[in-house]
Amino acid sequence: MTALLAGGIVRRTEDRLADGREIVYFDDDEAFVSGAEDRRRPDLRRLDPVAGGSQLRYDVLTGEWVAIASHRNERTFLPPADACPLCPTGTGPVPSEIPAADYDVVVFENRFPSLTRVAEDVPALVDGDPLWPARRGTGRCEVVCFTADHGASFASLTPRRARTVIEAWADRTDELSRMPGIRQVFCFENRGPEIGVTLHHPHGQVYAYPFVPPRSAAMLRQAAEHHARTGGNLLRDVLIAERTAGTRVVLSGEHWTAYVPAAARWPVEVHLAPHRDVPDLPALTGPERDELARAYLELLRRADRYHEGVTALPYIAGWHQAPVGADRELGRLHLQLFSILRAPGRLKYLAGSESAMGAWINDANPERIAARLREVASPGGW
Amino acid sequence: MTALLAGGIVRRTEDRLADGREIVYFDDDEAFVSGAEDRRRPDLRRLDPVAGGSQLRYDVLTGEWVAIASHRNERTFLPPADACPLCPTGTGPVPSEIPAADYDVVVFENRFPSLTRVAEDVPALVDGDPLWPARRGTGRCEVVCFTADHGASFASLTPRRARTVIEAWADRTDELSRMPGIRQVFCFENRGPEIGVTLHHPHGQVYAYPFVPPRSAAMLRQAAEHHARTGGNLLRDVLIAERTAGTRVVLSGEHWTAYVPAAARWPVEVHLAPHRDVPDLPALTGPERDELARAYLELLRRADRYHEGVTALPYIAGWHQAPVGADRELGRLHLQLFSILRAPGRLKYLAGSESAMGAWINDANPERIAARLREVASPGGW
Repeated sequence: MTALLAGGIVRRTEDRLADGREIVYFDDDEAFVSGAEDRRRPDLRRLDPVAGGSQLRYDVLTGEWVAIASHRNERTFLPPADACPLCPTGTGPVPSEIPAADYDVVVFENRFPSLTRVAEDVPALVDGDPLWPARRGTGRCEVVCFTADHGASFASLTPRRARTVIEAWADRTDELSRMPGIRQVFCFENRGPEIGVTLHHPHGQVYAYPFVPPRSAAMLRQAAEHHARTGGNLLRDVLIAERTAGTRVVLSGEHWTAYVPAAARWPVEVHLAPHRDVPDLPALTGPERDELARAYLELLRRADRYHEGVTALPYIAGWHQAPVGADRELGRLHLQLFSILRAPGRLKYLAGSESAMGAWINDANPERIAARLREVASPGGW
Repeated sequence: MTALLAGGIVRRTEDRLADGREIVYFDDDEAFVSGAEDRRRPDLRRLDPVAGGSQLRYDVLTGEWVAIASHRNERTFLPPADACPLCPTGTGPVPSEIPAADYDVVVFENRFPSLTRVAEDVPALVDGDPLWPARRGTGRCEVVCFTADHGASFASLTPRRARTVIEAWADRTDELSRMPGIRQVFCFENRGPEIGVTLHHPHGQVYAYPFVPPRSAAMLRQAAEHHARTGGNLLRDVLIAERTAGTRVVLSGEHWTAYVPAAARWPVEVHLAPHRDVPDLPALTGPERDELARAYLELLRRADRYHEGVTALPYIAGWHQAPVGADRELGRLHLQLFSILRAPGRLKYLAGSESAMGAWINDANPERIAARLREVASPGGW
């Protein structure tokens, strides 16, 4: 099934992999390289069905759901070292995950998902004790390939391609939000071996959670309290306060402002928020998406200049969106981009204080982070 | 000042370092190696005063305090590579942090603390905006050396020495709890380069926070809700439920039981809880401390046998104690011991889902973790 998005500049084509997983191509150039029937190839791999053993357990000590995905420890699929599973099929010795001769942007269901489309039934209580509720780990984990070019990075994409990725994120958010039981859709990129990324091909992920994740829950709690006290939207009021103070603003356009949060917890951290109240990526207008493509690329390029001598900053970039269903009106779209690299060769580790107590210690001053992110702006503007 | 603890088996001696920091020796052998005047040496180092630039900022998005300790990024004191700052002075080419010819257990204030004894004044609001409260980062960070033997580990200590460490933890908890403004005392050990430990000498830390850390706050919220609903103490009821179910119990003695929590979030995780309702380490009786020394050593030794071929598991071991002041009655002492090592050479990274969303995915099944921890029990018992 093929459709045109974004006024015809992106062509969307759905297909299936050999084991039934969904794959969606987003083509942005005139050749429509993967959308055309003659460029796609049948996926002839013999694949076992995707494992579905994920379950959720309620951590009664903290009130948080933990996903137990022990099926992932028995991963059978390991590509040969010289075969990238995210390159187009035909460029390597074995078929990759993408049965097309080329592609622009492509999204497919993860073969080893933390949250599974079909989850096995689990008893409602662990060991029958009411202290320990459990549920199926139903959800969705998708992989987003940003380019067929194995050696590229997101920061090296053209604004046109970044725009297509935004279209893909919005598409996936919209579609996964409609799946039964989904409460939060999270589009993110982990970049760099320092945070455990083993596939170097430029890619991100989408998680659709069947619960409100703890950070989202904390933000909703704070937003509800703020609304009850002031009548305002917390994230909008933070944006206004940052723009008013100006001390931590990193870049500002017609539709978007980037700032280092006043209580930044990571050695490098910047948030990017739309000027208009927007719950999620699908709600952005065309002009907002156009500017976002440029602003996001500029932030990533500044990140790669942040530390002298470090040309590829390890980072996590995550889109916080309004939840699906209850409390949706309290959410407001924003990007959180951060790094654990304190200085060249020196990582911020999450040890006792952070991992056992949840108490973050930041050795970097938020105003200095902002000053540095302004200092490394692209000379020609963005 | 010298005093005898634990019925005379431990001698406690206070002293000061050259820059005024406190140091406390806990001697457990008959020679009282460091407590004796003639074994201690004057600390003749010329040290700059300890920096005091820590501040706390309120993260309005999550409701959590973040410590900004940017003075730590300007660390001036770096010991030469061949000089361990935690060995007794006299064994290396330069004076160490410990001006004594030998010691058993010693505790001293960290020279580069995240939370400082004397903190600089900070405006009550960042940029004058009520969204961003700020406070002095007043608190205390101490280092605990478990042995003068540089090549040892906690697991290799004798029960007698482990007992002395417990005495030191209890002493520090008691003393720091009395400091003005302290809300939580946290005794912990980070072990292994995989979590960023750069000093290999066996040591742990004590943090005294001037706020209730996020994990403690979550546990108190859950305990309050549980108490309101059932009248019970949450942590006691979890212990009873684990002992009743038995499926995740790892070891059990007269005074202590160790179990893998039903919703374990780490690839290796075990909790150790006293049978009696106890708020913190100082409240333990002599017999409880005696058994704890043996039970804790046994858990650490099993941890070092957990993965085939890994003889030194990287771990974080942290003592959750009742807060000081409000909600103290809701807390209950327990140890949380966990590792990020999923398999030999494979770490669990805290990437997008954990670090940006707070949603933990565990590839290990809690019941299997428990089975493995039972399997690697010490053959002769503990």
